[in-house]
Formats: sequence, structure tokens, C-alpha cells
Amino acid sequence: MTTQADVRTVPSYVRDQWWTPDEGSRAAEVLDASTGEAVARFGADGLDLGEVLAHARTVGQRELGTLTLHERALKLKELAQVLNGRRDELYALSNRTGATKADNLFDIDGGIGVLFTYSSKGRRELPHSNVIQDGDVEPLSKDGSFIGTHIYTRLPGAAVQVNAFNFPVWGMLEKFAPAFIAGVPTIVKPATPTGYVTEAAVRIMVESGILPAGSLQLVSGSARGLLDVMDYRDLLAFTGSASTAQSLKSHPNVVTGGVRFTAETDSLNAAILGPDAIEGTPEFDAFVKAVVTEMTVKAGQKCTAIRRTIVPEAQREAVARAISARLDSRVVVGDPRAEGVTMGALASVDQLQGVRDAVKDLLAAGGELAYGTLDAPTVRTASGEEAVVEHGAFMSPVLLSWADGDAELLHSREAFGPVTSLLGYADVDDAVRLAARGSGSLVATVCTNDPEVARELTTGIAGHHGRVHLLNRETARSSTGHGAPVPHLVHGGPGRAGGGEELGGVRAVKHHMQRTALQGSPNLVTAVTGVWQTGADRRIAGSPAFGAEEGAVHPFRKSLADLRIGDALASDLRQVTQEDITAFADTTGDTFYAHTDPRAAEANPFFPSTVAHGYLLVSWAAGLFVEPAPGPVLANYGLENLRFLTPVAAGDSIRITLTAQRITPRVTDDYGEVTWDAVIQNQDGEIVATYDVLTLVEKEDTLYRDWQG
Amino acid sequence: MTTQADVRTVPSYVRDQWWTPDEGSRAAEVLDASTGEAVARFGADGLDLGEVLAHARTVGQRELGTLTLHERALKLKELAQVLNGRRDELYALSNRTGATKADNLFDIDGGIGVLFTYSSKGRRELPHSNVIQDGDVEPLSKDGSFIGTHIYTRLPGAAVQVNAFNFPVWGMLEKFAPAFIAGVPTIVKPATPTGYVTEAAVRIMVESGILPAGSLQLVSGSARGLLDVMDYRDLLAFTGSASTAQSLKSHPNVVTGGVRFTAETDSLNAAILGPDAIEGTPEFDAFVKAVVTEMTVKAGQKCTAIRRTIVPEAQREAVARAISARLDSRVVVGDPRAEGVTMGALASVDQLQGVRDAVKDLLAAGGELAYGTLDAPTVRTASGEEAVVEHGAFMSPVLLSWADGDAELLHSREAFGPVTSLLGYADVDDAVRLAARGSGSLVATVCTNDPEVARELTTGIAGHHGRVHLLNRETARSSTGHGAPVPHLVHGGPGRAGGGEELGGVRAVKHHMQRTALQGSPNLVTAVTGVWQTGADRRIAGSPAFGAEEGAVHPFRKSLADLRIGDALASDLRQVTQEDITAFADTTGDTFYAHTDPRAAEANPFFPSTVAHGYLLVSWAAGLFVEPAPGPVLANYGLENLRFLTPVAAGDSIRITLTAQRITPRVTDDYGEVTWDAVIQNQDGEIVATYDVLTLVEKEDTLYRDWQG
Repeated sequence: MTTQADVRTVPSYVRDQWWTPDEGSRAAEVLDASTGEAVARFGADGLDLGEVLAHARTVGQRELGTLTLHERALKLKELAQVLNGRRDELYALSNRTGATKADNLFDIDGGIGVLFTYSSKGRRELPHSNVIQDGDVEPLSKDGSFIGTHIYTRLPGAAVQVNAFNFPVWGMLEKFAPAFIAGVPTIVKPATPTGYVTEAAVRIMVESGILPAGSLQLVSGSARGLLDVMDYRDLLAFTGSASTAQSLKSHPNVVTGGVRFTAETDSLNAAILGPDAIEGTPEFDAFVKAVVTEMTVKAGQKCTAIRRTIVPEAQREAVARAISARLDSRVVVGDPRAEGVTMGALASVDQLQGVRDAVKDLLAAGGELAYGTLDAPTVRTASGEEAVVEHGAFMSPVLLSWADGDAELLHSREAFGPVTSLLGYADVDDAVRLAARGSGSLVATVCTNDPEVARELTTGIAGHHGRVHLLNRETARSSTGHGAPVPHLVHGGPGRAGGGEELGGVRAVKHHMQRTALQGSPNLVTAVTGVWQTGADRRIAGSPAFGAEEGAVHPFRKSLADLRIGDALASDLRQVTQEDITAFADTTGDTFYAHTDPRAAEANPFFPSTVAHGYLLVSWAAGLFVEPAPGPVLANYGLENLRFLTPVAAGDSIRITLTAQRITPRVTDDYGEVTWDAVIQNQDGEIVATYDVLTLVEKEDTLYRDWQG
Repeated sequence: MTTQADVRTVPSYVRDQWWTPDEGSRAAEVLDASTGEAVARFGADGLDLGEVLAHARTVGQRELGTLTLHERALKLKELAQVLNGRRDELYALSNRTGATKADNLFDIDGGIGVLFTYSSKGRRELPHSNVIQDGDVEPLSKDGSFIGTHIYTRLPGAAVQVNAFNFPVWGMLEKFAPAFIAGVPTIVKPATPTGYVTEAAVRIMVESGILPAGSLQLVSGSARGLLDVMDYRDLLAFTGSASTAQSLKSHPNVVTGGVRFTAETDSLNAAILGPDAIEGTPEFDAFVKAVVTEMTVKAGQKCTAIRRTIVPEAQREAVARAISARLDSRVVVGDPRAEGVTMGALASVDQLQGVRDAVKDLLAAGGELAYGTLDAPTVRTASGEEAVVEHGAFMSPVLLSWADGDAELLHSREAFGPVTSLLGYADVDDAVRLAARGSGSLVATVCTNDPEVARELTTGIAGHHGRVHLLNRETARSSTGHGAPVPHLVHGGPGRAGGGEELGGVRAVKHHMQRTALQGSPNLVTAVTGVWQTGADRRIAGSPAFGAEEGAVHPFRKSLADLRIGDALASDLRQVTQEDITAFADTTGDTFYAHTDPRAAEANPFFPSTVAHGYLLVSWAAGLFVEPAPGPVLANYGLENLRFLTPVAAGDSIRITLTAQRITPRVTDDYGEVTWDAVIQNQDGEIVATYDVLTLVEKEDTLYRDWQG
């Protein structure tokens, strides 16, 4: 093992500056996984973590608070573009951790992908403000004067993120992205063995100038003591070993201080081969491929890797043969910098030792070595030679086959490397039982082409799993894989997997916010949510008979610069005759008996006699509210929540009231979305139909001013 | 204090039988709050809690699993009706705990109300199955063959509910209702001082015969040791003191075993009077009324009571005067069985001593006694006399006024009785700061008629609160009150309030379920969710040109007895001409330029030239899919998620494909809801519009068979 006196000490980024400990402070040295050369040192002695936290809570909160959810989401896209342009720097560093090119796609490109996805989802699925209304409005009084709903507002503290060594870039970005959109400042503490890759990514982000002050801080080295100053305003998101998770979770500031704590720990994930998926089926081949991929990507150092390969007992030998054959033909272990290498080193010789110890325990407990060796393997070095490397953390893939699938250790002892256990089941219930013996896992693959087997296995194991990956011939090529969390779906799992939940699109943004029930009058709930609530005041244009103020302008004539929630239009009444209904039936072809045959209509429990088509009503309503000439309203792009409540018979009349409900200017376009609350009433004021009209409206009324001018 | 040798030992209800400890076992005696007479004994020595838990996990899970979400929801309504019919028994018992008639409305009627609300919401907002699909489908491959979504399935363990003494009925029912709908068996452990009221309610429920075996068990007496046998499959929902919550939360089975733990603890809730709400305004009066109500309901023994009354410093004296005057004129302390009593006793003399101690500490820390006394008050006895009662747990309401609103103890020491502290603030920011000093609360009232003040105060404090109650002249009469959680909205709060979340409609049902990400092909995701997913197989009727099978029946001709998800109709193409568009514009009145003026339409960024109305397209689509003659489809009652994606110009043609997506038979009616996935395409197969058509369909095709036959 070589050490170098001049090896770089990796700095922290705190209080918007780079910080390095005094020379001579304690520091941990990190080595190249393949060669054992010293790469970097880590130390944070003398760093005042209380000040780091205070900076996040003050400057970070303040600066992030000047932006909306959409503005912050847009910054993630900009950060992703900058990182994308400097990926090669990260790849080169990451090779030193033992990661291959394919591994880097998961970690570095995958992390950048999370930023892109969050940027897009944040702007599509959240409002352009800092208050998210959650769910429906609940009427809480008969007269409508007291209503309830829920809002999300950001947590008033910091998001402290303690990450694992296996994904130095993705691990940071998948937690940073939702915290950043929510407006909660991040303090990231990467695992030391690969923290120099994280530091490089943070440096690129800092140098971009895109980050608001205080929004991201990095602690390179120990962050012990940070939890001592945290409280209920803060979150701690931990990824790593179950034992560290437990010690953090029992800290007084978690138990009594209310720190919001979540953990993702590695788990003994299962892959289940369905009874139908026997040798010779496309499912069998896809299953074997998935198992081998999970054994070898990141040299098996993935929380999501398949640790328990559960197959029909009669297929156990065939599966062992097929896995062994694929490992033989596909896997080249070696230095990631060498051509042709498909599986790199473990992250360190310490890791290697831990995996070897675990395998020895599993062998002693009844596992049989069906493939691989615990000896140091011959590997491909950076120069392309085949050799046994003394200081490299290399290991051969190992397949353990179990005659007794109920052996306790098989379901509780994890070898965090290129290792899987193969066991047999008797029937579907037995497979469910065995999968559940993992006591809570991040993910399971269910491989079957039988819909009923898929349903039984999935509903049987879902309560024990954070994700279920269904694999069959239809997805063998297109699946994103057992082991890869995607930003759209939640990542986490109950029990042994830590009990946490990350990602899942905007769910993770909301995880960084407090959900608060809100009760009050429509006017005050409107003021807080920024969304117009039924019953709140409005400024009505249109028909004086239905409340219009004199001189009020049709709201479709207002650009987003002038439009305010509560701006409304009330139409006049228009009468519907049987001739109108019949004509509508004839031209549209919708000759349903309820519109055309009085005797049949009367037998229907919901209709008094023949009634107007619902589609006639909404079409006429558009005629009643439309402003025909060009203006800032560009298009009606959709409709939501349409309900027909009172039938309209021939002779009845209808009118519509349309009220600006939500206004969402786009940060990247000259227009935005406006949602209009639409209510159709009859001549007696009864509500005939309610819905939301979705329109695109210009920010400034330029298009038609220019075009007409 | 009297004790009676023959006082009844309250039994437990476990393993579907009543259980009483052996005579001579240890037992705690509970006394009448007003008279000190012995009411009941509690003891559970010898009860095997491991067997209780095992019964829930086996028999309870099995029996609840035979029902769907809707079927369980309906049983809640039946239970509510039974309890409603026997309320008087519960009222009478509850009086012995010190609760008045008005208090019983909160606890007993309120608890029954939770059952009704959950029954209704469960059937309206959840599917008629045991798998809930959560959120949108996420496309995860370009070809649509690999998709993702989320499902909720029930937790595979038990819901252990440890409740507080103040709401023996509501406290049980508000936790039982969502657990029951989710399909998770309940083990309820009420607080001993009022556990005899809970036992009476459980007895009524058991005697009704409505409860499935194992679905509800009651432990009367200590449940110490239950947590020792729980694991990640189980939930523990605790309401009570912060210190007990902490000891439970640091139990190894919570820290490392993954037991899902939530706590609601009492908190130092604030009520803030806005700067505009000065003496003489309706807000001022409503505020004073709310504070007095919260001081006196349940003698102030409510987790949600107002402990900190925060007002503009200049209003502090006026508020103190007004509160005192209202207490004088409205509050009669005494035995709840006496006529005219508006505030009962505390639950026990121990409680009384605790409250007195807290008030003494607060006085020593700077609070001034602005109303009330710590001496034993003269009260109205059951016989109507005014007297000082030796063994009664009576206390006078106490108002403490603080010159120094920043005194530490004011924000940290709670007197869990008819006590509030009054303090002044300088400006809105100061009010936010003071409210946040509670370190996390269940609820705050914001009393103002100024929308901007409402917005600033609410967004300022929301991150520290589980609920914000906006009070103004519009809601003074209709508000359900500061202190009353409603089943529709979440109940809980961060930090000191315990960090939990209960109620909130179906949110609480999902809290008893595991959210699992699900990935796979449309066919397999359909099989698991029971919801047809785009891309999955279907059985198409209609146009052979667009995939119809020979002899396939129009799905509108199928009752729920025959209809299956994936049953579909493909229409033929129908061409749209400019004449059609113009005629539609003329008859509907929708003469928007995009349909009528080619030059203007072309200037619009979204249209090639004039295009058909979106409303024309959906109207024609109905004409293409409708089955005119009477049949099992009764009505099209609405539409969801309509998006217009590709404009349709004159000369283009459209066709529609309609696929049964969700089928939800009603448990109480002869029909149910069917949601149809609707896709309009043009002659080139481009997607013109997508939406969901909502229909009511008969379970059996009886109506028209009878009518025509």
C-alpha cells in the first residue's frame, strides 16, 4: 500500500466558502480501489457544525425563499446541464472508486437524470408559488361559509443528508433535488471512501453560480455532532448501514426533539421466478440476466441488489447452471480503466473483507458454493494484463445455492458485494412466505407471464416491500431493471430496509414540507392558498342580472399581467328546446334514448323525461362564455372534474359562471395556465354541472396586439 | 374517598372473548371525578399479550381480508347506527369522568360522527377492492411496454392504539375507523381513568355482531410488554403525554424493529388575534368566545386547547377584561349531572394536582393571575347545591397574563386544565416568532379579517403547525372551533405535538397501508391493480378496421355481471368539414376565432388554421360510442382528465376507442360506477384527445329487461 505526503485534503463547502482543516489535523486517507494508491484525505476537525446548520436555517432559508417552486425547479435543469457538460471529470474520478463505465451511467448520468426529471415534474405538477394546496376542499358548514383543505409549506430548517459510499453523485442529487425544489437548504455529508467524487460534483455546481447562497453545503469528513444541534424543523435523511441508522434514530433529538428522520438501509431483496417461468421460457432467460446484472453492477454494492434468488425448487439446478454460464461468458473483473472490464473492484479492501466474512458465515450456515471463489481472483489491470493484484479490492462473483431455503442466516446476513443466494420454493404461498422472511425489503422482482401469479405474488409481498418489479417477455428489453430506483417512483422499504421513502416524483418534495390542515372562510382560505375557493369574493363581468359590476371587463380580455383569481364572467340564460336536443342528437349521432325517447327516459331512475345531452350543455356553455375575437386567451386545452348534477329538460334554461381559480405563469414561456371554475345553473339557480376549464393565457397581450396593430 | 369491595373489574376483550383477571390480581381503582366514589377497577395481570397480537395478525387479518375496502366501510356505518341508538348508556357513564353534556357531544357523538364520515369517504374515495392505485402512471420506456405506478396494500400486522383519558370514545373510534377500513385489526388500550367508558362502547360494538372476528381487541389495564412482541408489520399509534411517547419511541422495536410509530401529544397551542381585530370588531368578540370555549370544554383537558393567547400588546388588557367577563357570565363549574353546569370536574384529583402545580410554576415564572383561583372552588353538586366538594377534582378557570411574553416557561410548561396564558406581540413577525416558540403545535387559531394578515400569519406559522384555524366574522357562527379535530382534515403536529398525523379522510386509511412502487408491462400492472392500463390487452367490439373481434358485444350492452376491464369499443372514422365546424359555432354560440377566422387562427401558436371545437370532438365522440337503445348503462355522469392534444382541421377525421378502465360496484345500490378510458384519434392515428368517461351501470340488466319485457 502506498501513501503520499502530498495527497490532497478534500475541502468542505460551508457558509458559501471552501473550507479545509488546519494542517496536521486528523485525517482519514482514501485509496484507489484497484491499485491501493492514496487518492485523498478527509478531515473536518475544527469545523463548527452549529454554524453550518445556522447558515442553512438563516441564509439558505432566506435565499431559497425568494424563489417559487417553479423557479427553483428550473435551476435544477440548469445545474443538470452544467453537470452534463463536465461529466468526463466525474467519470475519471469515479473510476478510482472501482466503478466501471456502466457503473458511472447509474451514478453520474443517473444523478443528472434525477435533476432533469425533478425539474420537469416540479414545474408540471406543482404550483408557481410556495404554497401547495393538497387534495379537495371539504365543506365543514352547511351554508358554505366554513371550509377546510390542506396546504404544504416548506419546513423551516435544514435537510441533512448522510449518504452511502456506493453512489457518490446519484446519492447526493436524489436527495438534494427534492429538498431544493421544496426550498429547504441541504447539508450533505457523503461517505468518506468516495467523498472526493461528491466534492467534485459540488464544485461544479458551486462554480456554475446557479446555487442560491446557503442552499447547499458539503461536509467532507465526520459530521458527528450535527444531530446534537438539530430539531423538529430539520430533516435527517440517512442512507447506509442498519447499525448507523439505529444509532441515529435513537438520538434524543430524534426521539424527543422531533427531527424528521428517514433511513434507507440495504436489505435482503428477493427475485422470485414464477412457477410458469421454467427453463426455455423468455421469462427464465430474462430472470437469469437480471440476477447476473444485479450481482455485477457496482460489484454488487447496491442496496437494491438481489440477495435472495427464489425459484421453484425443481428449477434450482437449472437456474444455477444458467447463472454460472452467463457469469462465465459475460463478466470480466478488473480495473475500470482497462478495456473490456465489466465488473470493477469493491470500494475498498475493508469492504472486500466484510463481504468475504459474510460469505464464510453463509457457507457455514448451509450455503453451497455453486459459482466463484473467495480467493483473490485474477483480474485485468489498467495496462490490460491479467494478474492477481495485491492491493486491489477485487472479488469474484459468488453464487450460493441452498438446499434448506429456510436457513435463518440466508434471510438475515447480507454480503454487500457480488453475491447472491439461490433457494427453492414449493408453491406461490411458500414463495410469498420466503420473500417476507427478509423482514422488509427495498425491492423484489416478480418474474412471470401469468397475470394471476403476478397478482398473487405481488399482493402477497407488497406489504413487505417498497417496490415490486414485474418482469416478463414484454419488458425483458424495456425494463429499467430490478436494481435501479427511478425518480418517478418511491425508493425505500419497510422494516430492515429502514422504513424510509425517497423519490417518487413530487412526493419527495412534499416530504420536505409540513402538511397543515387549513380551516376558514372561502375568502381567507383563498388568501392563503392563492387558489380561488367557491364562495369567495369575485369581480364579475357579463350579465348585470347575475351580479356583473358595471364596466367590468370580460376576464378573457385580460393577460396574466392583469388577471387576478376571482375575476369572473356571468352569462345570461339561454333556453333549451326539444328541437335543440333533437338537432344535437342528429348532428352528433348521440341518439341515446334519454335524449330522444320520453317513455324510455322516464323509466331511467335519473331522468324526469328526455333531457339535454351533457355535451350539449358544455358546448353551449362555451358559447356563453367565449370571447370570439383574438385576445390573450390562446386555447382551451382541456377540462377537469366535470360532473352533471341536475338534468336539463326541454324548456329549461342554462347560464354559466366562470371564475379564474388558479393562475400558473410558466417560467420558460410567454404564457401560462389558467384554470377556471365553471358552474352551469338552470333558471331556478340549481347547479346543473360543475367543471374546471383549462386555458393557456399570454403573460402580456402581445400576440394579437402585434397581429392586429 | 370511598372504596367499595364489590366494585366491578372492567374486562378486556381479546381473542373474541371477554376476559377478566383472576380475583386477587393487582388492579387500579378509578373514582368518580365529581364525588370520589369508586367506579371501576382495571387489571390485566395474566393476559398473554403475545397471543393477543398473534390473534390480530392471524384471525383478524384473515377475516378482514375477506372483505373489500367498501364492505368494511359500510360496516362502519352499521356500527355507527348501533352506537347512536345506545348513546344514553355512554352519556351516563361518561358523566362519571367529569364530562358534561356538551363534552359528551365532542366525545361520544363526535366519535360516532367519525365512523359515519369514514364510512362515506371510504366508499366514495376508495376502490371496491383491496388494492389502491396511487397517482398517475409513469411511462418508463419509450415504447410504452414498461410503466410504473404505486399501489397501497394493507399492512400485514396489527394496529395497536394507546389512547388518552380525555376522549374515551372519540379517541378509540378515530383510530379504529381508518385501521378497520384498511383491513388492519385493532388492539385498543384506553387510558385507565376513563377506560370504563371505552369498554362500554366496545361492548356495544361487539354485541352488534357486526365486527369480523379478530378485528377489534380491547386491553383494559396495562399493556406493558405489547411493544416487545411487535415488529415492522405493526403500527403503534399513541396519544398522551410527551414523556410516555418518548419512552415508546426509543423502544428497540421502534428504533431497530421498524414498528410504525406515531404520537399525538398535547402541545402549547396558540390563538393569535390579528392587528386589525381590535376591541369592538366582530373578530375580537369571536376570539374571546373561542378562548373561553377552549378553556372550559372538557375543563380544558384537550390536547388542542388554547394554551397561549397571543394578542397585540395594546389589546392585552382589553382581552383580559373580556375573557374574564365572559367566564363570569357563562361558566358554571360543577357535577355534570346537575342542571346548568357548563364545566365539569377534571378527570381525577391527580390531574387536578398536576394542573395546580403547573399554574404555580407559571406564576413563579412571571404570569399574573388575571382571573380565577387555585383554591378549591365552590361548585354545583349533583343535587343542585353550591358547595366546596372535598373529593371532587374541580378547578376554577385560570387566566394568566404575562408582561414578558418571552418568558421561557410560558412556551414550554403546559397546565392541562382550564388555563390559558395571555401575552402581547409587537407586530406580525413577532406574533409568528412567538407562536413558533411552542416548538411545534397541533393547532393555532389566526383571528383576522384582513386577507393579507391571514396569509402572512398562516404561511409564517404553518411549518410549525398541524392545523391552522382562520377565524373571522364570516365564520364566527359556522366554525367547528379551534379545538375540534374534524375527520376530514389531518390531526397532529410537528415537534412537541408528537410529529404524528391522524385522520385527514382517506389519508389515515393509507397510513395503515404500505405504499409500493410497481413496475411492469401494462398487462401485468393491470392484473395487479385491477385497473386497465393503456397498452394492456383488450377485447374490442365495433369497427373491424380498428381491431374489433368478430361477434364481440358492444360493452355498453354488458351489465356489471358481465363487464370486465379491458372490454372495449372501437368506432369508425367520421370526417369533420368546415361546414360542420361553422354549424357547431352557430348553434352553440362558440364563435371563437380559432374555429371561424383562418387568418387569426394561423397567428395563434397552437393552431394550423381553423380547427374543430374541442366540444365538437367530444360530442361527436359520444355519437360514435353511444348505444342508443335502453341497456345497463344508465347515465354518463361526468368526465375527467380531458386533454386536447392534436388540433383537428377541416377535412380531418376522428374515431374513438373506449375501454372499461375501472369498475366499482356500489355495496348499497343496484348499480355502480364504470370509468372508461377514451382516446380520440385522427385518420393518421395521432392522438387528438384523451379523457375518462364516467358512467353508472347496472349490476344486472334488469331495468330495461323488465321495462321492455
